[in-house]
Amino acid sequence: MSRVADIPTATVGRVVTYIRVLEELEAQNVLRASSGELARRAGVTPFQVRKDLTYFGRFGTRGIGYTVAVLRRELLRALGLDQTWNVVIVGMGRLGHAIANYPGASDYQFQNVGLFDVAPDVVGREVRGLTIQHMSQLGPFVASVAGTPRQVDMGLLTVPAEHAQAAAQALVAAGVGGILNFAPVVLQTQDLHLPEAFAAPGRREVTVENVDFLAGMKRLAFYMLGPQAGPAEE
Amino acid sequence: MSRVADIPTATVGRVVTYIRVLEELEAQNVLRASSGELARRAGVTPFQVRKDLTYFGRFGTRGIGYTVAVLRRELLRALGLDQTWNVVIVGMGRLGHAIANYPGASDYQFQNVGLFDVAPDVVGREVRGLTIQHMSQLGPFVASVAGTPRQVDMGLLTVPAEHAQAAAQALVAAGVGGILNFAPVVLQTQDLHLPEAFAAPGRREVTVENVDFLAGMKRLAFYMLGPQAGPAEE
Repeated sequence: MSRVADIPTATVGRVVTYIRVLEELEAQNVLRASSGELARRAGVTPFQVRKDLTYFGRFGTRGIGYTVAVLRRELLRALGLDQTWNVVIVGMGRLGHAIANYPGASDYQFQNVGLFDVAPDVVGREVRGLTIQHMSQLGPFVASVAGTPRQVDMGLLTVPAEHAQAAAQALVAAGVGGILNFAPVVLQTQDLHLPEAFAAPGRREVTVENVDFLAGMKRLAFYMLGPQAGPAEE
Repeated sequence: MSRVADIPTATVGRVVTYIRVLEELEAQNVLRASSGELARRAGVTPFQVRKDLTYFGRFGTRGIGYTVAVLRRELLRALGLDQTWNVVIVGMGRLGHAIANYPGASDYQFQNVGLFDVAPDVVGREVRGLTIQHMSQLGPFVASVAGTPRQVDMGLLTVPAEHAQAAAQALVAAGVGGILNFAPVVLQTQDLHLPEAFAAPGRREVTVENVDFLAGMKRLAFYMLGPQAGPAEE
């Protein structure tokens, strides 16, 4: 497998799609698939499939294709999706609730271990066996589970945009180095530094993935414009 | 502007991010920005920013940078985000509710005009002034608003995976040619055909954007694995 830093982010995104396609094939009891079949279902070219997979190892046999179960298992392993990732959700509005209740998450061993908010009418409520805690308890909670099987790996930010950077700071200050940001703002990662006690050697300090909840809608709008011409100039 | 089909999908995704960055700069009363500043905030290289923008026109002045308001306006226009897109949501579970209530959607003139489900305890409820209708009413509803300012442009699929393809078929049969699929399954678009009465000349028949609700979490898991080596073989 190539070094993580050498793998294009677009490739990582497509491999996530390939895994989903392989799961569908498995559900349909398909044992082997060609790069053409994977490509058709993923909406890319066969060349793209083969090129993307070279980053992760040597798979498949010319003329025979890929063994669905093996390729799925290896890609899950390559992406770290064969292990459990413990997650806290910061911001238990509707989106936080939707994620906390999303049935698919547990298929990938994303395990909610803590839920946080600041609203008095939300703190103390129970969601799927977890009591929503006040944000002031984030640091103590993360510290209390450190080194246990419930150690926090990732924080999901589902707070309003104006609170996202501060909530990210709170996660990082507590020692949570992976953030999935659903708030409609691009987090400024250069301002986020893990306390020295938490920073592992050889590991990027803080990893942020920004999820634009409306990005899909915006892309769809563009593709629905249809063929266009005429350059814009400032 | 280049033809839609010639613009890489990754570029479209990044331009969505640039627009978000430009909005932040505007909110901070920043009037001009270099490609370096845009790149830093968007988490890409300055070269990538400049290359992506060439697809949409000629922007900026060497040594002076981009006028934030102008670039934002032109990119919004290029992506079709300066016009209203009417949306129906099919599947009013927690995710459907989260989207129907998402405050950011109206900023981009995504307007919910109809909500649909099949569950007897959900149909008839009201969300933000819209009554949730039964799926059997989808076709008649879409027909009733055709040609009016509430004409349906897009369908958002937030149904369970096993119902996604059938719900997509229902949308397309009703004449809705743009689908944003949140269900954890890759829709098979080759099976989706707009009825002849609805297909506009020169327009791709059905446009589907698949949104993997967990894709961000999966990518984050990968990046948190840290530097790796050792190729996998089947």
